[in-house]
Amino acid sequence: MRSVLILPLLAAVVAADPLPSWNNTGSKRAVVDFIETVTTAGSPGYVSPAERIAVFDNDGTLWAEQPLYFQAIYIIDRIKELAGDHPEWRDEEPFASVLKGDTKKALEGGEHALIEMAMATHAGLTDEEFADSVRAWLESARHPKTGRPYHEMVYQPMLELLAYLRANGFKTFIVSGGGIDFMRVFTEEVYGIPPEQVIGSSIKAKYELRDGKPVIVKIPEMNFIDDKADKPVGIHQHIGRRPLAAFGNSDGDFQMIEWTTAGEGARFGLIVHHDDAGREWAYDRESHIGRLNRGLDEGPKRGWTIVSMKDDWSRVFPDPR
Amino acid sequence: MRSVLILPLLAAVVAADPLPSWNNTGSKRAVVDFIETVTTAGSPGYVSPAERIAVFDNDGTLWAEQPLYFQAIYIIDRIKELAGDHPEWRDEEPFASVLKGDTKKALEGGEHALIEMAMATHAGLTDEEFADSVRAWLESARHPKTGRPYHEMVYQPMLELLAYLRANGFKTFIVSGGGIDFMRVFTEEVYGIPPEQVIGSSIKAKYELRDGKPVIVKIPEMNFIDDKADKPVGIHQHIGRRPLAAFGNSDGDFQMIEWTTAGEGARFGLIVHHDDAGREWAYDRESHIGRLNRGLDEGPKRGWTIVSMKDDWSRVFPDPR
Repeated sequence: MRSVLILPLLAAVVAADPLPSWNNTGSKRAVVDFIETVTTAGSPGYVSPAERIAVFDNDGTLWAEQPLYFQAIYIIDRIKELAGDHPEWRDEEPFASVLKGDTKKALEGGEHALIEMAMATHAGLTDEEFADSVRAWLESARHPKTGRPYHEMVYQPMLELLAYLRANGFKTFIVSGGGIDFMRVFTEEVYGIPPEQVIGSSIKAKYELRDGKPVIVKIPEMNFIDDKADKPVGIHQHIGRRPLAAFGNSDGDFQMIEWTTAGEGARFGLIVHHDDAGREWAYDRESHIGRLNRGLDEGPKRGWTIVSMKDDWSRVFPDPR
Repeated sequence: MRSVLILPLLAAVVAADPLPSWNNTGSKRAVVDFIETVTTAGSPGYVSPAERIAVFDNDGTLWAEQPLYFQAIYIIDRIKELAGDHPEWRDEEPFASVLKGDTKKALEGGEHALIEMAMATHAGLTDEEFADSVRAWLESARHPKTGRPYHEMVYQPMLELLAYLRANGFKTFIVSGGGIDFMRVFTEEVYGIPPEQVIGSSIKAKYELRDGKPVIVKIPEMNFIDDKADKPVGIHQHIGRRPLAAFGNSDGDFQMIEWTTAGEGARFGLIVHHDDAGREWAYDRESHIGRLNRGLDEGPKRGWTIVSMKDDWSRVFPDPR
């Protein structure tokens, strides 16, 4: 009788695995142990559902970020689209380089150049016009390497992790250097994260009446850059309490994970290490995008889980829809 | 048999009234009609739960605001408490007037004076130190007229309305000119609104290590004033979609209600009119606090519900705990 009973039980356990795209390595065990610790009623690590907040970086953590942040590609496409209305861009950097097809030169100015281009292409639009523009771009644009829509270049194991956390009473938030309104266009459909749980960088906006109709209009003035030491500040502003768990992939996430894991009781910090040149990309200490240096050195000493994309994930991207 | 059946049914209906402190007037019917419209599956006004967002002003809408915004009273008490460490305040306005007990003169500078005092008393504190200070104040301070703790001077009918909306799948948010971190100390316990659903005014903050321990520290620089035409901007920043329903009491809420009710489909706007000198206060067009002038004139034409505290509410404050 024994084997007859055990076999169906095992099948049930396998079928119920909430993280099927995670190999059975230490990373997966660390995640599962943490969730069990904070959700087991009566255990010393138990945390009430209201306090179960998990924060996720986006670029490089939930979706890919190579060869360029996807929002940078949107901005470049948008500059080309709007160039007819801006003859002055032909002689003005970084726009001139974009229009000549020299993206590398256009981005030599780093964050500053990117912000300048974001403001020039986003400002003046209402919130709805901007969302429409991003939506249209997501529908038509394709990734240069895989040929897939950008919102399909999300990590299947992380989608499972988001769902697993929510099934255990967590509220999941995005805390990204990316544009808050850019992300909000797709986070609900793609990640199950509603707009009110997205934190990101933003330019300022104002309220006005256009033809008697009230609108929110973006204005070309920086509001907040949600990166590095300002990620905990963004979390403080939007959430108002310290998360229990933080998930990132670069040194831009260091302080967010540091602040999260310095809280009392059970906390969890995780870094996705891009070491999978075959299925995705391999980059870390020397990369201009998603540089991961300090996190690789200090993360393990601080008890953070370092996910090897190559060893810990049985698959990377979901099947095409 | 008929009456035997009907009596218990009626009793059940009465017991199930979700708004027992609302008289059976047009205001209550308008609220109930709106909720039924957006939650009845298959009806033309149906709205999916994810889109059910309701925003509430705080001062004068959820709790009282006379004789002075309660946070202003906290700030004044705090200046007196800290005066020993600030001998310079004895000769410096508005602090000097506060220390002489001349609150009226101290507040002659209006919003500017209040912000200056808020910065002087809040800046330099960590988020946790600030919350502890507010918590201690709420426990010990008493309202000058009623002798009750400030967090008991909340409107029972509005507590019922918050619960009624949530029971119908709404996410309830606060959108207030008050300090975001001041409110977050009590909103979860008093209103059932978690910190991540509170939007308010703020000074800037920074992340730093103190004795190796990461903290969020308030700095004396204005971040955002969540009032008037900036209320829709605050909603846009924090929520990222237009609410279905907005509740306020002053012209500071006008644009928030305007923006909410200009959306497509069924929308709801409501203004609490303070016309109950017996049980609360009576003030509107000429008041320095919570001035309501434009809303009284234009609200009814725009289809907004104007609540008469005197006629529409059978009780104002909850019983002492």
